[in-house]
Amino acid sequence: MKIIVDAFGGDNAPLEIIKGCAMAVEKFDDVDIILTGDEQTIRKVAEENDISLDRMDIVHAPDVITMEDHPTELMKSKKNSSLALALRLLADNEGDAMVGAGSTGAMLTGATLIVKRIKGIKRPALAPIMPNATGMFMLIDCGANADCRPEMLVQFAHMGSVYMKNVMGVENPRVGLANIGTEETKGDELRKATFALLKDEPNLNFTGNFETRDIADGGVDVLVADGFTGNIILKTYEGVASMLSGKFKGVFKKSLLNKLGAAVMLKDLNEIKKSMDHNEYGGAPFLGVKKPVFKAHGSGKAITICNAIRLTREFVQSDVIGKIEADISGAADKSED
Amino acid sequence: MKIIVDAFGGDNAPLEIIKGCAMAVEKFDDVDIILTGDEQTIRKVAEENDISLDRMDIVHAPDVITMEDHPTELMKSKKNSSLALALRLLADNEGDAMVGAGSTGAMLTGATLIVKRIKGIKRPALAPIMPNATGMFMLIDCGANADCRPEMLVQFAHMGSVYMKNVMGVENPRVGLANIGTEETKGDELRKATFALLKDEPNLNFTGNFETRDIADGGVDVLVADGFTGNIILKTYEGVASMLSGKFKGVFKKSLLNKLGAAVMLKDLNEIKKSMDHNEYGGAPFLGVKKPVFKAHGSGKAITICNAIRLTREFVQSDVIGKIEADISGAADKSED
Repeated sequence: MKIIVDAFGGDNAPLEIIKGCAMAVEKFDDVDIILTGDEQTIRKVAEENDISLDRMDIVHAPDVITMEDHPTELMKSKKNSSLALALRLLADNEGDAMVGAGSTGAMLTGATLIVKRIKGIKRPALAPIMPNATGMFMLIDCGANADCRPEMLVQFAHMGSVYMKNVMGVENPRVGLANIGTEETKGDELRKATFALLKDEPNLNFTGNFETRDIADGGVDVLVADGFTGNIILKTYEGVASMLSGKFKGVFKKSLLNKLGAAVMLKDLNEIKKSMDHNEYGGAPFLGVKKPVFKAHGSGKAITICNAIRLTREFVQSDVIGKIEADISGAADKSED
Repeated sequence: MKIIVDAFGGDNAPLEIIKGCAMAVEKFDDVDIILTGDEQTIRKVAEENDISLDRMDIVHAPDVITMEDHPTELMKSKKNSSLALALRLLADNEGDAMVGAGSTGAMLTGATLIVKRIKGIKRPALAPIMPNATGMFMLIDCGANADCRPEMLVQFAHMGSVYMKNVMGVENPRVGLANIGTEETKGDELRKATFALLKDEPNLNFTGNFETRDIADGGVDVLVADGFTGNIILKTYEGVASMLSGKFKGVFKKSLLNKLGAAVMLKDLNEIKKSMDHNEYGGAPFLGVKKPVFKAHGSGKAITICNAIRLTREFVQSDVIGKIEADISGAADKSED
């Protein structure tokens, strides 16, 4: 299969992106890469760092979309950017999937406008895989759609469930609705209306409302939220985790004695770090568009890109898109956006 | 002043409540207490534990409202509960303020229906004081109102600001709107409409949108949210903090060697614990009702109750209610609910 990678997206582009692609190509015999970006720079960086470009094609893209560009510039002044070109190649069936570590907003807008939605899907969603005490879970949506209607959340539930089952190997994924209490009557109007739909929804293991107090403990495989709430959850999660980790790190380094104390349990402390490491799961699939698009962490290193390519390979092989189409077709008949 | 305390609310009632009241009475010459609850039990517990009931009146209440009772039972089958009675005494001006550690929902409903709203206030709000890296901040609303309109959030901003200034001693409190990005155009419709109102609001130090990623680092004194979002933030915060603390604690106790390692930095580790301790700030004022009502943490011990009484004393002395009335009167003229 051919995976298109935006070589110029992310904090560590292009070096770590190219490195990650080389790792993936070496690991997976069936994966070829198309890199988009400034060809001369890619070749130079590869040469300087002794990275083989075997089984990697380069499609030259002179522009780069930055965090400062408005996402819609992808269609205008930045239509020859590495990201826009990657998405156009995907839309034109030049590749099977696309991976990028650049601006989330630009990727979302580009994927929606260029690759386009699956028929019947009202809104594509950004769905990061996050660590918890028992492994990981998916939070869907996480910022693609600030204002949602109940039927959109139902579609998120289906898409998340299909992905977790087929890509992450979770048998009969438990789907929870992020809410402020567990009883059916809890929450705002959006939650109440969504609960009423979800509880009667076929082909879904809906386990009810889920309080974010329990988010880190596990208990749910797919956590459904509107994009505003999902993004709030994601950022609060990251903020608190980073603050507390920082406090502990500060204590461990405070004095020579503390350093010695921490040194004896370094291996165990690293286990905590690893369990909280977002890079472990590579990032977030973007669900609801016609072809697999995967957002890798912007700060990701080569291993993150390689993981993202691994997951994207599964995304393609397990035909998640076809399964979402099949799963959603009933709901799509009911109403069109 | 007279502070009415629900002696039968909270996980550790009545013993820790009575103890906390005794601590407060000893600490503050100007505070007398009215305890509501089963008189015989209160006297028995006090005697058995050698707690003086000096400057504490008891108003006998035969019933207790539990977590299982619907909050509206306060007005019906549980109108002689310790909580309903405490709120009625407050409404009847038998005391200056009320403190309770029982069911938040029942306290909110009771305060709104029995003590009633300040004229012009659309919705009272629950506003916990939470720890962050630089001290503490207020999150308002935190669950009293799941569905909010922009003008309600503007009132939350004012009430929070008045409280933080007058009770917590924060000069010119920075008010942020909890949002998923810092730019003015970010967020859902509610956030955009609220931002537009807040930026032109007089008597308010509105510092713009605030991302919950930064919540634990500080940077804001009053964080404004609808009750749904606020409750999601609160519970995600608590959940992640508790999970991570648990992971570290697990490592510290994992082996004899680890125990020794942790022992050398015990004092510093306890500092982290203390900085994350919700009991430090006692709980959450309930802002927008005619008289001071303060929700103490349900799991609080005597010191929590004593802290809650200390803050409630400030709440009364600084005339927060009068200042909210004055601050809100302009906005109240515009529309009535």
